Amino acid sequence: MSRPGSVQAGFQFSVQASDGNARAGVLRTPRGEIETPCFMPVGTKGTVKGMRPKMLRDMGAGILLANTYHLAMRPGSDVVASLGGLHRFMGWDGPLLTDSGGFQVFSLGSTAKIDDQGVTFRSVYDGAREVFTPERAIQEQQALGADIIMCFDECPPGGANREAVAEAVRRTGLWGERCLAVHHEAAGCGTDGPQMLIGIVQGGVHADLRRESVERMLDLDFPGYAIGGLSVGEERRQMLDVTEDTAKRLPHDRVRYFMGIGDPGGLLEVIRRGVDIFDCVLPTRVARTGSAFVPEGKMNLKNAIHAESREPLDRDCPCTACSSFSRGTLRHLVMQKEILGLELLTEHNLTYLFRLVRGARRAIVENRFAEYARQETASHPW
Amino acid sequence: MSRPGSVQAGFQFSVQASDGNARAGVLRTPRGEIETPCFMPVGTKGTVKGMRPKMLRDMGAGILLANTYHLAMRPGSDVVASLGGLHRFMGWDGPLLTDSGGFQVFSLGSTAKIDDQGVTFRSVYDGAREVFTPERAIQEQQALGADIIMCFDECPPGGANREAVAEAVRRTGLWGERCLAVHHEAAGCGTDGPQMLIGIVQGGVHADLRRESVERMLDLDFPGYAIGGLSVGEERRQMLDVTEDTAKRLPHDRVRYFMGIGDPGGLLEVIRRGVDIFDCVLPTRVARTGSAFVPEGKMNLKNAIHAESREPLDRDCPCTACSSFSRGTLRHLVMQKEILGLELLTEHNLTYLFRLVRGARRAIVENRFAEYARQETASHPW
Repeated sequence: MSRPGSVQAGFQFSVQASDGNARAGVLRTPRGEIETPCFMPVGTKGTVKGMRPKMLRDMGAGILLANTYHLAMRPGSDVVASLGGLHRFMGWDGPLLTDSGGFQVFSLGSTAKIDDQGVTFRSVYDGAREVFTPERAIQEQQALGADIIMCFDECPPGGANREAVAEAVRRTGLWGERCLAVHHEAAGCGTDGPQMLIGIVQGGVHADLRRESVERMLDLDFPGYAIGGLSVGEERRQMLDVTEDTAKRLPHDRVRYFMGIGDPGGLLEVIRRGVDIFDCVLPTRVARTGSAFVPEGKMNLKNAIHAESREPLDRDCPCTACSSFSRGTLRHLVMQKEILGLELLTEHNLTYLFRLVRGARRAIVENRFAEYARQETASHPW
Repeated sequence: MSRPGSVQAGFQFSVQASDGNARAGVLRTPRGEIETPCFMPVGTKGTVKGMRPKMLRDMGAGILLANTYHLAMRPGSDVVASLGGLHRFMGWDGPLLTDSGGFQVFSLGSTAKIDDQGVTFRSVYDGAREVFTPERAIQEQQALGADIIMCFDECPPGGANREAVAEAVRRTGLWGERCLAVHHEAAGCGTDGPQMLIGIVQGGVHADLRRESVERMLDLDFPGYAIGGLSVGEERRQMLDVTEDTAKRLPHDRVRYFMGIGDPGGLLEVIRRGVDIFDCVLPTRVARTGSAFVPEGKMNLKNAIHAESREPLDRDCPCTACSSFSRGTLRHLVMQKEILGLELLTEHNLTYLFRLVRGARRAIVENRFAEYARQETASHPW
């Protein structure tokens, strides 16, 4: 299965164990190894909101994600480059992944205009007219300097008709080729070292369009493939079926990335279907609204029932919120909009996901993933 | 100088060295020793905004301050007590000090009405009518359970006339006596162990009223004395003269607390005049507006000059902001209102003050305080 053409110096993915379709692997990068399955916390503007890099490392984060769109607008990828690249900028010397900016351009700019050339939109920061093309998306990511970068793709909105999805598949293929060319021109390197470029499969919930998109991406031969365009409003059942069918068609020896899933139940379901890495703002965003992941489901700390509770959030969790504070204090911090409250809940929700995913990895290695997933979702279906 | 009547079980203050009027001491409490001079970070609602307790400990915080007014209103001192007391509530097992609520009652409630009984005001939280009396202030502090608690005093606004200040001195004496009675009734203990009650000297900038207030407080015999009612708009020169004159009249073997000073230059000046402990929201509030204490003065990170600076904030500072981030990144975080930005600047400003005050202590021990203060304020007068 080895394809020398797609091998990137310093990067290597290997599957170490599998259980059904679920895989336990290792992604080697020049900045360290990532054990998969792996949840990537989102550092939209170069910081996972409220978390210090050292804390993320101590909690077990293997890789962080940052958004090219936001960083390209503020402070500018050139500024990040002149400050020494994204790793130094973020104070994180481990692996980093940047998205291509496509998703933000499509979802934030309702005035976006798309043609084969690229996307024209107005910046949410200052209203300036901006054009993102596949070339610019890669160049921005090269300037930023993450280890893993993403192709510029067209992600149609949830509920787009078949025709629009087919067009997005065609364009995503066209753009993928151009992204690859710009990537190769730079010898696969950004301002901060070697980069691995991941292709993205589109196709909405249409099995035939997904297959077409997979074929197109396999032809381009990427060292890893992402499943994009899901979690945009479709039924979860449908999403999982598409994920399963798509993952099966991707090469066994390439890393698979599901873009945008972060609820505990959903993570286990995409892991079950052969996904290796995933990201989402959900755990950190939920934390900032005052809710915590607990084995029983999502706990809203604003509920008055917690006001005098001396219980920890989750008795088995080693995070600061659970080891040093009562539900009563956490509720007080949330109600008073204290920064410490959202810091602690962010740490907790990420810790919850990291532990869940590490547990999934162990279960895959020990060939008991199905039982593990059943246990973890027994008290709450998510 | 020993006064058995005022000795509180578990508490002991001793001066270990002095240099001019400046003192290096140790305040022993049931929860650990505090080396003085000592800056106390303010955790208004039970948290130093944006700081985890462990981080404060690692940075060298010896004692934290929390506000009785805010905690009595939300979540309620009874709730804090039922959650196990303020130490558990805050996740801090070191020494804690609560103020009496007086300052907030006077400064937040413009509708406050004062008589000898106490103060009637409307809560800023829900507009409810509240009455704070000396008795209630002590009872709230007993329920909260800090190690060091404060007398309920009348703090006249800056610019109050002599008559008003004289009345406040009289009332503060009257109230101090009632505070002491409630404190003794509870055998000097709160819900969380032994407590030390500190008396407060008022008198504005009037030397004779200050002396009268000192005499009254000495008659009541407290194990420590605070200088209140300054930093409310008077000239700094005047403030320092009053501080010097007041400190001289306080017993050598009792801890002296200047309420509300937090600028680097000001700290050194009150230390020079014999003050042992002090607090202020300034360093943490300044951080949240995007400014940092540096040897040259106060640096506003919003200034565009920092956008592409790879320099650390302060080359000699060991804090996370200085060791892991450039001014360029810090500016980006501040401009984007990222939580991490205010966390890092808060850590930096507190680290700056802790180091400054530790340096002052060493200088006092080595009899070179005047030179130290001159050096530290050489490049910026503060």
